[in-house]
Amino acid sequence: MATDVRETGNLIGSDKVEGTAVYGADATRIGWIERVMIDKISGKVSYAVLGFGGFLGLGNDLYPLPWQSLKYDTRLGGYVTGITEQQLRGAPKFGAGSEWNWADVAGNRAVDDYYGVPVV
Amino acid sequence: MATDVRETGNLIGSDKVEGTAVYGADATRIGWIERVMIDKISGKVSYAVLGFGGFLGLGNDLYPLPWQSLKYDTRLGGYVTGITEQQLRGAPKFGAGSEWNWADVAGNRAVDDYYGVPVV
Repeated sequence: MATDVRETGNLIGSDKVEGTAVYGADATRIGWIERVMIDKISGKVSYAVLGFGGFLGLGNDLYPLPWQSLKYDTRLGGYVTGITEQQLRGAPKFGAGSEWNWADVAGNRAVDDYYGVPVV
Repeated sequence: MATDVRETGNLIGSDKVEGTAVYGADATRIGWIERVMIDKISGKVSYAVLGFGGFLGLGNDLYPLPWQSLKYDTRLGGYVTGITEQQLRGAPKFGAGSEWNWADVAGNRAVDDYYGVPVV
């Protein structure tokens, strides 16, 4: 559990979100938040980028996740997602050396669709 | 103008927001975004922390600003604020070695009040 004052109350610093652990529904650590994508106009976080490194041979890949698919768990001190490893295997991703084309609205929508947003 | 793909369309990466220049109403650079504070529940950016280093003898201070006081300017490739140097001189701030107590709701509200949110 973090005691850093940058993580008090309901507010968390962007530099603190980056690197925060992401846990599966069974509380096992599946990766980390590489960064979050913020809408410049509304100021709302739209996506998180999940880093997923060298786990079960899946390599160091980056997965754009809808922000709604993550819930902060104060007990674990990280984000919990209902997304399964099975789902991640077929999910939209990009390599560490490249970058997702965030300007591609259709591509972003495909991420939402894949994870069933706004059904989640 | 940034050509980085992490800054395309309406979305910008949190690691890219950090360090982005902040300009005054007259387009002079007044500082940079040190980090943004994200509401863990709503996913909305509530505050930006303005870094203000060694400018006009004000030293390297950090100023919590309401997110609404900043507008992204694609031409400048940074955020523009109507906040004046005069306003900053009396504004709530903290030193680089310390940290704002983000859990103090009254303290955060004082920031909003100081800059006239939601009047802005």
